[in-house]
Parts: sequence; C-alpha cells; structure tokens
Amino acid sequence: MAQKPSLPKGTRDFGPAQMLKRDYILNTIRSVFKKYGFMPLETPAIENLSVLTGKYGDEGDQLLFRILNTGDFLKKTSAGDYEEGAKALSPKIAEKGLKYDLTVPFARYVVMNRGEITFPFKRYQIQPVWRADRPQKGRYREFYQCDADVVGTGSLICEAELMAIVNEVYTQLNFNDYKVSISSRKVLEGLAALCEVSDKFTAFCVILDKLDKIGEERVAEELSTIGVSSQNLEKLKELLNTTGSNQEKLGTFREAFVNSEVGLAGLDELSETFEHLKGLKVTTDQIIFDPTLARGLSYYTGIIYEVKPTSISMGTITAGGRYDNLTGVFGMEGVSGVGISFGIDRIYDSLEELNLFPETNSDITQILITNFDKESEAHALGILAKLRSKNIKAEIFPEAAKLKKQLNYANNKGIAHVLMVGSREIESGEYVLKNMETGDQQTATIDALANLLS
Amino acid sequence: MAQKPSLPKGTRDFGPAQMLKRDYILNTIRSVFKKYGFMPLETPAIENLSVLTGKYGDEGDQLLFRILNTGDFLKKTSAGDYEEGAKALSPKIAEKGLKYDLTVPFARYVVMNRGEITFPFKRYQIQPVWRADRPQKGRYREFYQCDADVVGTGSLICEAELMAIVNEVYTQLNFNDYKVSISSRKVLEGLAALCEVSDKFTAFCVILDKLDKIGEERVAEELSTIGVSSQNLEKLKELLNTTGSNQEKLGTFREAFVNSEVGLAGLDELSETFEHLKGLKVTTDQIIFDPTLARGLSYYTGIIYEVKPTSISMGTITAGGRYDNLTGVFGMEGVSGVGISFGIDRIYDSLEELNLFPETNSDITQILITNFDKESEAHALGILAKLRSKNIKAEIFPEAAKLKKQLNYANNKGIAHVLMVGSREIESGEYVLKNMETGDQQTATIDALANLLS
Repeated sequence: MAQKPSLPKGTRDFGPAQMLKRDYILNTIRSVFKKYGFMPLETPAIENLSVLTGKYGDEGDQLLFRILNTGDFLKKTSAGDYEEGAKALSPKIAEKGLKYDLTVPFARYVVMNRGEITFPFKRYQIQPVWRADRPQKGRYREFYQCDADVVGTGSLICEAELMAIVNEVYTQLNFNDYKVSISSRKVLEGLAALCEVSDKFTAFCVILDKLDKIGEERVAEELSTIGVSSQNLEKLKELLNTTGSNQEKLGTFREAFVNSEVGLAGLDELSETFEHLKGLKVTTDQIIFDPTLARGLSYYTGIIYEVKPTSISMGTITAGGRYDNLTGVFGMEGVSGVGISFGIDRIYDSLEELNLFPETNSDITQILITNFDKESEAHALGILAKLRSKNIKAEIFPEAAKLKKQLNYANNKGIAHVLMVGSREIESGEYVLKNMETGDQQTATIDALANLLS
Repeated sequence: MAQKPSLPKGTRDFGPAQMLKRDYILNTIRSVFKKYGFMPLETPAIENLSVLTGKYGDEGDQLLFRILNTGDFLKKTSAGDYEEGAKALSPKIAEKGLKYDLTVPFARYVVMNRGEITFPFKRYQIQPVWRADRPQKGRYREFYQCDADVVGTGSLICEAELMAIVNEVYTQLNFNDYKVSISSRKVLEGLAALCEVSDKFTAFCVILDKLDKIGEERVAEELSTIGVSSQNLEKLKELLNTTGSNQEKLGTFREAFVNSEVGLAGLDELSETFEHLKGLKVTTDQIIFDPTLARGLSYYTGIIYEVKPTSISMGTITAGGRYDNLTGVFGMEGVSGVGISFGIDRIYDSLEELNLFPETNSDITQILITNFDKESEAHALGILAKLRSKNIKAEIFPEAAKLKKQLNYANNKGIAHVLMVGSREIESGEYVLKNMETGDQQTATIDALANLLS
C-alpha cells in the first residue's frame, strides 16, 4: 500500500532552517517597501488563461501550467479535437492556469479596480509564480517573485526611490559588494540612430548586450553584418569607451546624441534621476551609467537598471525599469509605471556564499525547559507560562527524557539556553541555566532569568 | 484586441486594505506560534497526484485541481483512452495537482526528511490550498490554511499548549467572545459502547453530532433506528444532560464508563490536559468538555477541539485534534501528532463584524510630503531622507499637484500626517504639519517632527 513520496521536478520544500533565512530576507525587503510607502497586494495563483496567454510571447505561452477543467472536462470536445492533437485540445479542456509572473495579474487587478484605486498606486507583491521551464541549477518551476511598482505617474522621483530602496535593502542585509547598472531604452535608441540602424533596433540591442561576453571586436563584426558602417562603428566604439563619472559620461553622450531627440531625452531622464538620488542623499558610488545595458526591451520603455554582486559570480539579483503601457492589453491606456524585482533565490545564495546571514535569529526559541519527571512537570509549566508572559520565546520538552536527548533537541533547533528543572531546583528556587553555545552554566532565579532573556 | 479581464470563480484578490487586516491576523498568529517554539515550513503548491489522491476520500479526489502535463500531453494516450472518457483519460494527461490541504504535504515532508528532523517536530505552515468546490458565501476555491502541529510525541502537554495558543492568539486580537469545545474520540467510543452500538460507531457519531441542530428527541429517534435500546437511550440522555464544572462532568462520565476501557482512557486524557492547562496558568472558563463534539473522526484518534464565537453566528474559527498515524500512508508508522488550524477567512469576518480591527495600522505610511513645484522638490527629498533615516515610514507625492489632490491621496491611503513643503517653509525652516484625522495644523522643525513621529 505504502508508496515512497516524491516532489515534482523543479519544486522545493523550505524546511525551518531555510525558512528562517528566507524570512530574514523577505522581512527586510518588506519592511523597506513599507517604509517607502508601498502597500501589499496578493492575487490568486489561479488565473483565467484568457488573462495569461498572449502576454509573454509564444515561448511564455508554452511555459504556462494549465489546469484541467473540473468535472467531465471532455464534455465540450469531440473525437476530432482529440485527433487534432494536444495544442488544439488544450484550450477546450483547460481554461485556467497558474500565474507566470506578478506583473500581468497586477495589471489585471489595476484594470478591474480602476474605480477604487487612488493613483499614483504604490504596491508590493511577494508571491510564488510557476513556469514549466526545464529545471536546472538555480531555475525552478515554482519560485517566489518579490516586486514593487508605482503606477499612474511618470515622475522620475519613482526611479530614484526604487534605487534608494535597493541601497537600503542591501545595506540592511550587510551586503555591500554589488553594482547597479543604469541606462534607458532611449539611450539604446540614440545609439542605434547614431549607427544608422534604427530600423534594426532589436538586433542592434541583442548584439550590444553581448559586449561583456564576446568582446569589442566580435561585437563590431556582428554589428557590421546588420549594416553598421565602419565609420559609425568607430564613433560607437569611442563613445562606449568613454570614462569618467556618470555626469562626465552623460555629457559626452549628450554631444554625440545632438541629432537624436529620443537619445537626448534618455540622457535628460538619467540626469534627473541622478539629481533626485542626490536629493534623497543616496550615495551613487555603486550606481553606474552603462549604455550597453539592454534588458526587458519588449516591455521597458524608459529607464532600466539591474543589480549584480561584484565579489561573486551570481548574475542579476535585482532589476527593473519603466514601462509605458502596463494595462493597455486589458483596454486601459496611458498607465505608466516603474518597478523593481528582487530575486530572492539568488539573494539567498549570495548571502549564503558570502556568509552574510546573521548568526542568531530572533525567530528561534530562546529557552528550552527540561522535563525529567511527572513531579516537576507542573512546576516547569508554571515557569514556562511566566517566561512567555514576559514575551520570551520558550518551550518545554514535552515528555520526560534523558538530559542528553533534550540537549540534543535544543542544539539541533538552535535554542541558545536550556533551563534545568528538577526536584532540587524546585526546592531551592534557583535553576541551572546552560548556555548552549559556550557550554557555561549559571544558577539564577526565574525573575533574574527573565531579565536576562528579555 | 482588448479583453475585459476577470477572476476565476472562487478566487480573490486581496487589495491593500484587506492585506493590512489579513497581515494583522496572520502576524499575530505567527508571532504566537514562534513564542511557543513552532518553526516555519513551506511546501510547494504543486504536488504529484500520487501523493494527493486517496488521502481525502473519493469526494476529496474529485475536488483536486489537476495540472495538465506540459508539452504534448496526449503523447501517452490513444483514441481509446479518449473514448473511455474524462475519468480514464485524466491520470494519463495530468500527473500533478494543487495541494488540497497542508497536512498531507506535511506528512510527505516528514517522511522524505525523517533522517534530518529532530523529533518532537513543531512546525507551523501558513499557505494557500485549492479545492474545486462549488464556490459560495465564505467558501473559496483558493484559500489560506494556517496550521501548527507537533509530531513525534504522544505527550498531552502538546494539547494543552495548543489550547494556550488559542487563548493567547484571541487575547492578542482582543477577541474574547468565543468558546472552546473539547472532547476525545475515545469519549465517543465510550458512549457508543454504553449504547451497545460500537459496531456502528460512525453512524452513531453522525447522529450525535446533530444534537445542536435537531434536538434531543429526534436524535433519540434516529439512534433507535441504528439499534440503541430505549434503556440505553435513557442512560445516554441522563449522561449528556450532566451539568457542572468540567471536573464534575468528567467524574460523572467516569462512573458511567466503568466498563469501557477506551472511554476511561479518553476521560483520563482530558483530565490530564486540564491539569496541564492549570500548570500553564491558562484560564479554562471558556474551555468546555462537550461529549457530543464529533469532528474529523476519519483521522483524529484522541483529543479533539473546536473554537466558535459566542456573540455572532460564524461557525468554527479554529479546530484540531490528535492523530495517531500521520505518515503511515507513506510507509512511516507510529508518528503520533496533534495539530490546530486557524480559519483565517472566518476570523477576518468575525473581527470585521465585531469591529475589532485596530483603528491604526503600523504598516501604513506615517507622513506624506507635499510636492508643489520643481524648486522645492530637492529640499523635500532631503526631508524625506532624514525622516526615513529615523525609521519613519514616509513618502513624497511624486509630482507637483494641487493640494487637494495630495490631501485626497493621503486620506484614501490612511496616511495620518501631511507635511507642507513650499518656498516659504523652506526659507523659515518651519513646516506646517496637518493631522489628517483631526484637521489640526501645527508648525514644526524637521527634528521636532521626527521626534513626534518616532
């Protein structure tokens, strides 16, 4: 009868040790979001496929998890549908799916609640999403996204605030070895104009994005295949090799973009964002104007940014940008927004690799009360109640057991203190307190103990 | 092109106002769980159907949401499978499903991690579950469960601790109008033995459970149809009408159960649990021994309990009990446990109906800084940075706008204070602070303001 249970590919359990660390990260981010005026939103895991499909491209559509209609799901089908194959049958037997990201459900929420929302609307959302991707190291089929967005305003203060959030989150996590790359889709458009390949914008960006990986020469080769002249390649090369501060680089670009209205607009927006950052007293040492940054260009229309660790090889840990038309696909035009997304799994792995998780965790039981016999149990329960009434996280070993077993329990659970309660201690009113880390023992009354732990 | 988006039946968005209230409830419960030594666990939404099916009875199996296999899901099927119908085809095209509760995934987790878990294992879990039930008022297809369990010990201290948690959670929520009913499956077995219908235990319990709804006479009628003699009906009636304290009632039952070993064991366990509650200084005024309580008898084997509001009609808001064999279905025998489950939706509705949600919520922005023109913006951003550096939740209206619009924004969002920053204020260093609740205005320096809000 008994079966050996297993987990679906690409899914994970988070046991207590992992959960405490994940909560440490998520609680930090959540508290910063709140401090900056973002409010929580949750949307269901299940969405109608009519909401999800067509929003993520063909590839995305294929990665949607589809939920079989309940009851007789073949009711509306015919043998002919079956013969046509899975692709034809699927929409007739599955009308709902699991959400693929937090953005499309957010757009749906905004459209459905437009009458009640006060704009600008600042929301954060921390929930799992699902993708039927091929699982591999660091890529899961069910994973959390952690997003904050402001919609309903084009103000670049929002961009600066999101950068300030990045700074505050990583400062609070004691994670300082990172770099923020910032640019704008409009800068890329300016570069394409400069190279006289505005009609091949996407191809141009794809090639430029490879600069880090394949180097200047091969990028030049590829750009020439899409029609960039050698003269323009020279101009581009010189521009991209500009050094200096962000302000200096923006100045050099301004000269080169003199004929590109969109390019200049992008530079103005970057300058204004840097101004706002100064106003917000955010140090910009780690924020670098990187004109080759090309991410999310199918939806981002303005400023874009990404955060990567500098001392370890981890990829992007946070990213975002401005989009012009969040809700257009649902018939509500003109809603501009800007967002940021923290990659929880990679932040977790980074803190782990850099040994940055705090040694103590305030979510763990502070003290275990031993249990040696029925006689001392009632007394021990009274001590437990007293400690808890002082808001101390405390527990009792629920059954009489050998000391070693109980110490082992405390040790494995990371409980810092064990209080010995036996008949001798009850009589004297002085209890032995063992510090599990140092092994030190001291005697104390319950009141003294409560003060020590509070 | 544009479509009007909708939500699947039985699912909900939780907007900011609801989320703040839900978080208030969940954070309260979570903090109490931690105070009592419970550690967090999360399992995936998606489970293999081999793990889920057969665990909830035929009805439960039908309520599982099944996920269509990805790719060509018809690959392993034939036209014959299609002809056989949905029930035959389903297992061949859907191998995964959404979890139906938190208990079976918890059992799977315990079995898969038995080597690493230190028992007794105290875990809490707060996650959504899915059931393809017919949606109706108060019944959803996606809803949160909020469970705490201790597994790997038979100690009745655990039962008492869970009662203490109920007491502490509802005290912290200022929700005092509730009653805890407590009994044991073994007491029901004792009653069935007394009535000489031990062989018809389930039918006996189903009838007894209707006492509140259909009254004594009709229960007696129904019991006689399953073979309870009129003499035994008299004995039962007398016993169930016993009044007095819990101790007095338990004493009366003890006399009646003199020939029922299992019945006496149930009474002993209840007495011991009440003893532990006394040890834990938990007032038992609201905890009532109710021998007719019959819930979850397909899995509970020992003590059972449920919590209901007394001043409103709401049904059960919290319930649980002891089970003997959590993991047997996965081949790991002898794991006894006891658990409790808080019904978040009903607690939410109860607090709403009784007007018990606190008026202020510490998750909301404390102060909005106005934005009238580009000139004052940089200065205002500096004030914003200063307030946040003192851990005050603050935001700036991101674009210049009329005062009315900005006050409206603060009002709708529940922000308690608005700080006016214009050229005059910048010059004087004294800012006008408006209290949005009273309408009062005062002038203050930023330092004075920060002290006021901290």
